[in-house]
Amino acid sequence: MILADARLQLVLDLVGVFVFALSGGLVAVQRRLDLFGVLVLAVVAGLGGGILRDVLIGATPPRGLTDWRLLAAAALGGLVTFRWHPNLGRRRLLVRSVRVLDAAGLGAFCVSGALTALAQGAAPLTAVIVGTLTAIGGGMLRDVLAGQVPEVLRRELYAVPAALGATAVVVARELGVLGTGVALAAALGVAALRVLAVLLDLNAPSPLRTSAPSRAESRE
Amino acid sequence: MILADARLQLVLDLVGVFVFALSGGLVAVQRRLDLFGVLVLAVVAGLGGGILRDVLIGATPPRGLTDWRLLAAAALGGLVTFRWHPNLGRRRLLVRSVRVLDAAGLGAFCVSGALTALAQGAAPLTAVIVGTLTAIGGGMLRDVLAGQVPEVLRRELYAVPAALGATAVVVARELGVLGTGVALAAALGVAALRVLAVLLDLNAPSPLRTSAPSRAESRE
Amino acid sequence: MILADARLQLVLDLVGVFVFALSGGLVAVQRRLDLFGVLVLAVVAGLGGGILRDVLIGATPPRGLTDWRLLAAAALGGLVTFRWHPNLGRRRLLVRSVRVLDAAGLGAFCVSGALTALAQGAAPLTAVIVGTLTAIGGGMLRDVLAGQVPEVLRRELYAVPAALGATAVVVARELGVLGTGVALAAALGVAALRVLAVLLDLNAPSPLRTSAPSRAESRE
Repeated sequence: MILADARLQLVLDLVGVFVFALSGGLVAVQRRLDLFGVLVLAVVAGLGGGILRDVLIGATPPRGLTDWRLLAAAALGGLVTFRWHPNLGRRRLLVRSVRVLDAAGLGAFCVSGALTALAQGAAPLTAVIVGTLTAIGGGMLRDVLAGQVPEVLRRELYAVPAALGATAVVVARELGVLGTGVALAAALGVAALRVLAVLLDLNAPSPLRTSAPSRAESRE
Repeated sequence: MILADARLQLVLDLVGVFVFALSGGLVAVQRRLDLFGVLVLAVVAGLGGGILRDVLIGATPPRGLTDWRLLAAAALGGLVTFRWHPNLGRRRLLVRSVRVLDAAGLGAFCVSGALTALAQGAAPLTAVIVGTLTAIGGGMLRDVLAGQVPEVLRRELYAVPAALGATAVVVARELGVLGTGVALAAALGVAALRVLAVLLDLNAPSPLRTSAPSRAESRE
Repeated sequence: MILADARLQLVLDLVGVFVFALSGGLVAVQRRLDLFGVLVLAVVAGLGGGILRDVLIGATPPRGLTDWRLLAAAALGGLVTFRWHPNLGRRRLLVRSVRVLDAAGLGAFCVSGALTALAQGAAPLTAVIVGTLTAIGGGMLRDVLAGQVPEVLRRELYAVPAALGATAVVVARELGVLGTGVALAAALGVAALRVLAVLLDLNAPSPLRTSAPSRAESRE
C-alpha cells in the first residue's frame, strides 16, 4: 500500500468497478442483449481495467478474480442495470448516462491504477501508463465486445483526463505529498474534467475540421 | 495435477482445443477468409481460452504456446475445416455446427480450466471464474476477430453452463470427491446443457421481451 | 541478450514500434478520429505486439510500458501521422501506405520477438510462435479497436512471412550461426516477402475461389 489509508484504495476500486459495470450493462441494454449478456458486459467493463492492470504488472491472479467484493460490485452493477435501466425510447439519455458513469469510473481507476502500480514498485512513467490503461481498459473491452468503436478513440477528450490524474498521483508521490486528500482530489478532478468535456462537447483537434457532415456521422 | 488421472486433463484440453479450432475455422469459412485466415482463426479459437487462463493465473509461457500437441490439435482443426467444411449454401447448417462444437468445447474447457486453476493453488471462487473464462475466452476472441458480437453476449444461455461446470469441479474438490468420473460427468453435463439450450432455443430473460421483431434481428 | 550486438535488438524494436505506430495513426485517419484517437491507435499498434509478447513470456511489466524510448517512438509515430498524413482524397494511397508500413514492422517484430523469447529461455517452438504473435499482435489490436477485420485474417499472405522470419532466427540459433547479419537478413527478407505479396496480390488458397465478386467485397 502506498497510501496510509488503505480503505481509500478499496473504495476507489469498488466505485470504479460499480460504475463501469453500470456503463457495461447500459451498453448491453442498448444492444438489446439478454440478462446474461448484460451481466457479462457489466462484469467485463467493471473488472476489465483492473485485470489488465494486474496482468501488465505481473500481479496474478488479478484482484478482480480473487476479491469477492469486486466481483460482487460488478455483478450488482449488471443486475441493477437490468432491473432499472432507463426507458429504451430515451436513447439519448442512455448514451449520456453511459458517458457520465464512464467519467466517474475514469477518475476512480486512473488513481487506483497508478497507486497499485507504484505499490508494486513500478517506475513513475510506468505507473502513469498503467494508471491510464486501468482507467480506459474496461471501457475499451466493453466497446470492442459490443461491436462498437471504443469511446476512447472517438472525437472527444477521454484518455487525457485519465493520464492527467495518474500523473498527478505519481508527481505527488515523487514530491512526498501523496495522501488521501490528494488521491481523492485527483479522482474527482478527472471525473469533473471528463463530465465537462461531455457537457461542453469539447473535442480534441481533428484532421477533418472542414468536413462537418462526417463529424456527426463518426459520432453515430 | 489435481486429478490422479493426469491423462484426463490432457484429453479434455485436446478435445476442447480441437473442437474450438473447428468452430473458429467454420466462422472463418462463413466470413470467406482464405487458408491462412482459417488457420489463424482456428488457432485463436482453439488456444485462446487456455492462453487467457494461463496468463490470468501467471503460468507463463502458456501451455498453448509450449505443448506441440495442443498446437497440432488447433492447426489440425483449421486444416480439417478448410478441407471438408460444409457446403456454404447450407448456411444454417454451418451456424448450427459452430454452436454444437462450441458446446463440446465449453464442457471440456470449463472443467480443464477449473482443474488447472486449482492445481496452481487458486482459491475456490477464483477457480470457478478462471474455469468459466477458459471456456468462453476462445470463442470471444474468435468472434471479436471475425467482427461479430460474441456468442456469449447473444440471447441464449451460454456462460451459465460453463460456470455451473466449473462450480461442480470446485465443489467436488472441496467435498473431496473429485475424480475422473466427476470431472468427465461435469464436462458432458455442460455440453449437454448447452446443446439443449441451442435445440430448445432456451433464452435468458431479456429487457426487451415485448419487441418481437428486434429479437430476430439481434440474432442476425 | 541472445545477440552479441545488443543494439540491433533495440533498433529492430524502435523501427517496429515506429512503423506500426504510423500504420495505426493512418488507420485512425481513415476512420476520421481526432488527435487523441490517432495517438491512442498509434500507441496501441506500435506497442501492442511487444506488450503481448512480454505478457505471454511472463516478462512483466512489459518493456513497452517501461522503456521511454519505445513509448516516445510510438507517440512520435502518431504525431507524425497526424501532422503529415497523406491527403484523404487519395484513399488508395492510404491503404497501400498502411500495408507497406505493416510489412516493415512485421519484419522487425518477428525477429525481435523470437530473439526476446529465446533470451527468456523459451523452447524453439515457443520462440517461433511468440515471434509470430509479436509481429501480428499490434496490427490485430489496431484493427479490432478500429472496428475492422484484422489484416492478418484477410485474403493475403501475412502471418506466413512472420512465421518464416521467426523460424529462421530460431533455426540459426540452433545451428549456432545467429548473428547480427542473419537477424537483419531475416527482418529484411520478411518485409520484402510481404511487400511482394501486396504488390503482386499473391493470395493464399481460398475456400471460395469460384465466387469472384465476393473476393473484391471481402477486401473492402
